[in-house]
Parts: sequence; C-alpha cells; structure tokens
Amino acid sequence: MQNNMKYIKVHKVLAACFMLDKLKEKVYKANMELRSKGLVIYTWGNASEIDREKGLVVIKPSGVDYDTMKVEDMVVVDLDGNVVEGKYKPSTDMPTHLVMYNTYSNIGGVVHTHSEWATTFAQAGMCIPAFGTTHADYFYGDIPCTRDLSDEEISGEYEKETGNVIVETIGDKNPLEIPAIVVKNHGPFTWGKDADSAVYNAVVLDKVAEMAYKTITLNKDVKAVKQHLLDKHYLRKHGENAYYGQ
Amino acid sequence: MQNNMKYIKVHKVLAACFMLDKLKEKVYKANMELRSKGLVIYTWGNASEIDREKGLVVIKPSGVDYDTMKVEDMVVVDLDGNVVEGKYKPSTDMPTHLVMYNTYSNIGGVVHTHSEWATTFAQAGMCIPAFGTTHADYFYGDIPCTRDLSDEEISGEYEKETGNVIVETIGDKNPLEIPAIVVKNHGPFTWGKDADSAVYNAVVLDKVAEMAYKTITLNKDVKAVKQHLLDKHYLRKHGENAYYGQ
Amino acid sequence: MQNNMKYIKVHKVLAACFMLDKLKEKVYKANMELRSKGLVIYTWGNASEIDREKGLVVIKPSGVDYDTMKVEDMVVVDLDGNVVEGKYKPSTDMPTHLVMYNTYSNIGGVVHTHSEWATTFAQAGMCIPAFGTTHADYFYGDIPCTRDLSDEEISGEYEKETGNVIVETIGDKNPLEIPAIVVKNHGPFTWGKDADSAVYNAVVLDKVAEMAYKTITLNKDVKAVKQHLLDKHYLRKHGENAYYGQ
Amino acid sequence: MQNNMKYIKVHKVLAACFMLDKLKEKVYKANMELRSKGLVIYTWGNASEIDREKGLVVIKPSGVDYDTMKVEDMVVVDLDGNVVEGKYKPSTDMPTHLVMYNTYSNIGGVVHTHSEWATTFAQAGMCIPAFGTTHADYFYGDIPCTRDLSDEEISGEYEKETGNVIVETIGDKNPLEIPAIVVKNHGPFTWGKDADSAVYNAVVLDKVAEMAYKTITLNKDVKAVKQHLLDKHYLRKHGENAYYGQ
Repeated sequence: MQNNMKYIKVHKVLAACFMLDKLKEKVYKANMELRSKGLVIYTWGNASEIDREKGLVVIKPSGVDYDTMKVEDMVVVDLDGNVVEGKYKPSTDMPTHLVMYNTYSNIGGVVHTHSEWATTFAQAGMCIPAFGTTHADYFYGDIPCTRDLSDEEISGEYEKETGNVIVETIGDKNPLEIPAIVVKNHGPFTWGKDADSAVYNAVVLDKVAEMAYKTITLNKDVKAVKQHLLDKHYLRKHGENAYYGQ
Repeated sequence: MQNNMKYIKVHKVLAACFMLDKLKEKVYKANMELRSKGLVIYTWGNASEIDREKGLVVIKPSGVDYDTMKVEDMVVVDLDGNVVEGKYKPSTDMPTHLVMYNTYSNIGGVVHTHSEWATTFAQAGMCIPAFGTTHADYFYGDIPCTRDLSDEEISGEYEKETGNVIVETIGDKNPLEIPAIVVKNHGPFTWGKDADSAVYNAVVLDKVAEMAYKTITLNKDVKAVKQHLLDKHYLRKHGENAYYGQ
Repeated sequence: MQNNMKYIKVHKVLAACFMLDKLKEKVYKANMELRSKGLVIYTWGNASEIDREKGLVVIKPSGVDYDTMKVEDMVVVDLDGNVVEGKYKPSTDMPTHLVMYNTYSNIGGVVHTHSEWATTFAQAGMCIPAFGTTHADYFYGDIPCTRDLSDEEISGEYEKETGNVIVETIGDKNPLEIPAIVVKNHGPFTWGKDADSAVYNAVVLDKVAEMAYKTITLNKDVKAVKQHLLDKHYLRKHGENAYYGQ
Repeated sequence: MQNNMKYIKVHKVLAACFMLDKLKEKVYKANMELRSKGLVIYTWGNASEIDREKGLVVIKPSGVDYDTMKVEDMVVVDLDGNVVEGKYKPSTDMPTHLVMYNTYSNIGGVVHTHSEWATTFAQAGMCIPAFGTTHADYFYGDIPCTRDLSDEEISGEYEKETGNVIVETIGDKNPLEIPAIVVKNHGPFTWGKDADSAVYNAVVLDKVAEMAYKTITLNKDVKAVKQHLLDKHYLRKHGENAYYGQ
C-alpha cells in the first residue's frame, strides 16, 4: 500500500508538471506577444497566469532578455510568493500580481507594461476617460489612476503595496468590468480571465489611451461619451444579451 | 420543357454562386487590406460590397480573427439584412452598411474602422476641415461629424440608426463628393464605387485627419483652404475636365 | 558623305537613348525611394532629374501605381513641357519642376511630396524655423512657406504658377543653400544637384519639420538657433573649409 | 636578447591589434544598433568605446554610409585625438567623446544621436524631468540640458567645447548616475560602462523623452515624480541592495 501511495504521489507530481508545462508555454507566449505588439522594449513588462486548482502562478523571470528567454525560464510561485520551481528569480512585480490573484478569484491573468500612451496618463496622474465606443467595447467606464503611494508604502513592501493601492482604487467594483488601471507615476496593469486576455487588454488599453491623448489635445473641452452609448457598446459585447461576435 | 427550366435554374444559381465567389474574394481582400494598411487591429473594422443586379451584399463576419479568416467566411445578406449564405453571423455594423446601399444607388462599397486619427475627430466631436490639397484631392469639402444619437436611437435599432444619422448629415449632397464621415464618439465610415475604393478612401481619410490634427495643434488660428484651391484640386482629379492620371 | 551624316545622326540618337535610359533608371529609383522612406503613399509624389546637355527632363508619369511602375514608364519632356518620349502623361506637377530647372541652372533634381510633417507646416501656413543643428546641417536658415496663390493664378496655369511663387519666395538667394520650401496649403518641394539629393533633402526636411512641430508644441516660447551655431554647422558641412565627412 | 625583445614587441603589437579588432567589431555593432533601433537615419550618430589599458578609443568614421560601412572602417584614436589606425577620418564629434573619456575614468562608451524626442528637448532648451518609474529605473534625476555655447566657444574648438559644457553641466556628480544629457539646440549624448550600455541608454533616453513630451502636452501642470519613488526605483536596480534582475 505504501508502494501504491508512492505511485499515486509520483503520478500527481508528473501530472502537475505536465500541466504547468502547458501553462509555462502559455505565459511565455503571452510575454513574447507583449513585445511583438510593441508594448514592451528590453525587459519592461511581465505577464503571469494562475492555475487556480493548484494555487500556483507562472510568471516571467526578472530582467531576462527576451531574445534568449525560453519557455523553461518561466518561474512558478505559490500564492505567498515562494518560488516552487524555476532557476531564475521571478519578476520584481510578482507581489503586485499576487495581490490581484489573492483578492479577485475571477482573475486568471495579469500583465504589467510601460507602454507609452498608458504610461503617459500614469505620469500625468490622470484617468483615461471613456471618449468613445472603442473604449466602451472593452472598458465599462473611465480607466482609473491610483493615488500616490505614501513614503511608508514605498519604503515598505513596495510591490505589494502597489497591488494594495490598485485594489483600493477598484473598490467594490467587479475588476473584470474595467480590466485595467494606471498606477500613478508608474504605468499600466491589466488583467483578464487568463494571460492572453490580459495581454489583449493591454494592447487595447494603449490604443484607447493614445486616442484619448489625441482627443484631449485636439479639443480640451471634450466631454466623455454619454452613459447610454457606453452601456450600449459594452453590453452588446459583454452583457447577457451580447450579440457581437459568433 | 420542365427539364429545360430546371437546367436553366441550376445554371443561373451556379452562375450567381460563381459571381459571388469573386465578390467574396474581393471583399475578403478589402478587409485584409484594412489591416495591412494599419487601420484595423484585432477585429475592429469591416468592409462590404454590393452586387446591385442581384441586390446582395457581401460583408465580413462578426468578430472573426483576421489571422484565420478565409474567403469563404464572408457572409452574403440581402438588402433587408437576411443572411442568404454563410456559416457566420455578419458584422454587427451590417445594418449601417445597408442603410447606405439602400439610400444611395451610386455607392458600391462601404468600410468602417476605428482608425486612430479619424476616430480622434469622432471622439472630439469635430469635423475634419479641408486644410490643404491632400484633402481637396479626394474630399470636396470638410468631412462632417454626425450629431449625437438620441437615447431612443441608441436603445432602438442602434446600428440602423447610425446609418440614418449618416444619411441625415449628408443631406442632399452627392455622397461620392465627400465619401467619408465620422460618427460622433464612434469612428469613421467611408464608401466608394466598390469595396476597394472605400478602403482607399479610409486610408486617405486617416492620413488627412492626421495632418489636420497636427495642423490645428501647431496653429490654432489656422483657416481652411480657400474655395478656389479646393475646387481646383478636386476638379482636376474628379471633374469633367479632370487631367490628373492617365 | 550623306551616308556618313546619317550614321552620325543615328549614333547620336542611340547615344542619347542610352544616356536617358540610365537617367530613367535613376529617376525611377528616386521615386521608389520616396515610398520606401515613408514620404509617399499611393501616387502622392514625384521626382525628376534633368540632363542639362540635352535640355531634357525625366519625370514620373501621372497617377501610376508604384507597385506596377517600371523604369520604362518614366516620361521624357523638354524644357517647354513637350513630351519627347514615353507612353504615359507626365506628372501633373511637371510644370512646377520645369520652372525650377528653367530658373536655376544649378538645380539638377526636383521632388514633390505630401509628406506629413512638412505638409503640416504648409497647411498651417508657417515657415519651418531653424531650431537646431539637425536643421543647420542641411538648410542655411528657416525653410520658407509661400504666400497664397491668387484666384487668377489658381484658375490659370496653376502648376506653373506654383513654380513661379516658389521662385518669388526664394528671391535672390542661392536655391541650394535652402533646398526646400513648403507651398501654402499644399506641400513641400525639395531640390538638389540631382534626383537623389532632392530625395535626400525631402527625407531630411520631413524629419526636421517633425522635430520643429514637437519643439513648438513642447515650448511655445522657443527661439530659433543662434546665427553663430547655424553658421558653424552649415559651413562645417557645406562651406569652403568643410571638414565633415571624408 | 635583442631578438627576444623584438619577439616580445611583435607579440605585443599583434595582441593589441587582435584586441582592437574585437573592440572595432563591438563599436561597429553598437553603431549599427543605433540605426536598427530607429535612433539614427543616414549618418546622424556615432558610438565609441575606449580601451583604458591602451588609452585608445575606437569610433565611427565621419559621414560614411551605414549600408556599406564595415568593421574595419572603424577609426582608432588616442586620447589626444591623433588617428592611430584607420583609412577614414574619425567622426566629427570625436573631440566631444574624448573630453568625456579624459574627464571621467568610469566611462567606457559614448554615443551621440539626433534621435527625435531627445532632440526635441534639446531644441526646446529644456531638461527632461523625471516623471515616472521608467525614467527612475535608469536616470537618477532630471536629464539636464546644457547652456548655450558662447560665440567664442562655437568659433573655437567647437566639438571640444561641446564636451566641456557637458562636463560643466554635470558638475561634481557621478556621470553614471544620470548617463545622458541634451546639448542645447543640438541633441543628446549618452554614455555607460561600454558602447553597448551607451547605446542602451540612448534608446531609453529617447523613450523617456517621448513619454515626458506626451506627459507635458497632456497635463501642463504635471509635477515630477516624488523623491521617494525616484530613490526606490533607481536603487532597486542600481543601489547596493539592488534586487531587480538575476
């Protein structure tokens, strides 16, 4: 029976490894996509995805060159941030990702970049107003900008506090209704049901931020889109009676 | 004789299919061109063309990935919006296209995008002024921006009402003289004698909008081009005595 | 002896053809370079070069697609604008090119584009100020913007009058010291010792215009570069004691 | 013994040549990287690296086309600017590079470009404020803009005086803490431990300048990042207790 137990345990571990191998490949591809979509230069971004059943997160290693980065370089951490597998240190921003996963059970993937248009709003300390249907198709309202972190928060567990201030800013809303935020003087975080959708939202966010910048600088008296149109476009794609797509 | 009728009918259907196959390929290519020209990311655009003899429109399917989209995925609808052929649902914006085809008999192709510069003007709620000869070569006057849709129009047949407000804005002008419009808080629609020329106009529109944005932000007191120069450039390409080209 | 004359004549014609073949290839490549450098989309530009000995100009045909355009499609005209060789009509802007060649004997190539940054200044009706050494390395002072053409000039020989107003704006200066201009509400013309250098100047012009736009919108109180620095940079590349390059 | 000495000398020279061959290749690649990263068009930039042991600098030749430039075209100069090896004249900006190497023993590579966003700040005569963590990750404070060079400095040893005014602007700071500067009405210089890191800093500088431009034009009342956050990000990457990367 001891033998049998051993067999089951080995089997479980192997199965776990196999599943994480698939997740590692997915997370690796999501990170590469950030670069090919022009959101990341050098090592300025990271994507992760969680395996909810196992409570394990796969994330990009810290400061590794995209040109040489491989699937097997992805790092596996548990929800307390302990490295479970991987020869590299995980992304410095890992604690921010974990706060999101620990707080919101409906989030499956998280992305951080310094993409230029979203970061512009972060640096300007401004939310990204919903100016049109492009925005409304993906984000059900303005994309918020966090408050300044206090000196204590910066000196303390900085990356974790970054996650906390994101959660504080989201408040009691469903995080999937506006799956993006800009952290003041820093840059954007996006999320979604998995790493791919977090990457997708990061691309849309930057495009929406670009058009918001141009809209404001073209017409400083511009008003946000009316609520009725915001509802219409968001709900025709994401509501109960959604009729966009197949 | 019955046999003969049957033969003729089959022959006609086959001929119709063959012609629509050509049109499907044309519409497919027009949609792909929107992406290769940088006007569309993900699924944010659609092109259609009408076969006036048959009263059938070929249009892109809704929300299908450009990477995997094929010629045979194009959807055929009649002028009431009934799907005649195709395994997919047609583009959500199909009713807007149909209003254009039903209202203007001289329009053969329609395009909708969220291209960034034209959408900027849509979001700013501003027309695109004719500032120079680049504009005048293609558009015989300012490119208008529609009014807001009312809450009733948005809650009702939204996509059809979008077409109606475009028609209302064009008024009694010939739609081919200024083959473009920006729908407020939404984005541009363009048209032409076929899908290719509608795509061409969409590219020119975005370039013209880009230069208009830069002109206004460089010199806020700028005036539109004088009527005489507008006439000259438009008419040397499109007038009776046009002498541009071969 | 008659026979001999005939032989010489044939020989001359053949030699002329051969030389123009080389010039056609050069002009063709210059036109293609305008597109590959991103200055021209569709058919929005033209380059020409003159053979001073023969008094013949080779220029792009009007409105021919760059994708299918071939070396042999280039058109040869004399200095009065008569087509000497070529199956196509020459560029509509040919008369503007001819005014430049007829007025300035030191000009060998002319280029016209609607490149976006230079056209922005044309549309804004503003000269492009010399803000830095990038400008001073190629243009010995501000790049001027022409006055409006009068209604008479527009209704008359428009393209020739465009050349005349360029010459009027240059005044008694050496055109090679500032080998570029923006025609109000239209776009840029550049020139040089041959078609290649006119293309080179068109590329530099647009880059210089881009940085001037950004400089002005960043700091509206900005001043032009001081004369001493303008002299230094222009003359270290183009003066008698130039020491830049090999 | 004489023979032996000769042998040693030859050996030394050969070793020196071999090492400089490697350095030449490194400097060549650094220069090509400036172009592939979009910082340089035509011949508008130069990179160099020093061999501190030999007191020799390898630098790009002046005004040589990148398309035909080869590793062996790199020029070797000593710290007084004498050409030690190379068939070409060194970059015109070589004296500026030498001032940097002669003044700061911890600098191993220098880069000069006319990259568009950094040059915009140079032309506007403005420093590039530290608006966010992207900036703080690489530059420990605002990136300064030099004063105007005096007429005497311009008329005199201009390129050397450019170096002197850079050194004057840096003052008593460690040049590696803010490894970049914009020279007024001219353009950026960056540096680092070698040519590669100077190129890297040139890329980051232009991206940071781009986002600073957009931040200022979006929100003219914007404030620089707070010191605490600047410290945090700079020091987590570059401080004694740095924990970013592997």
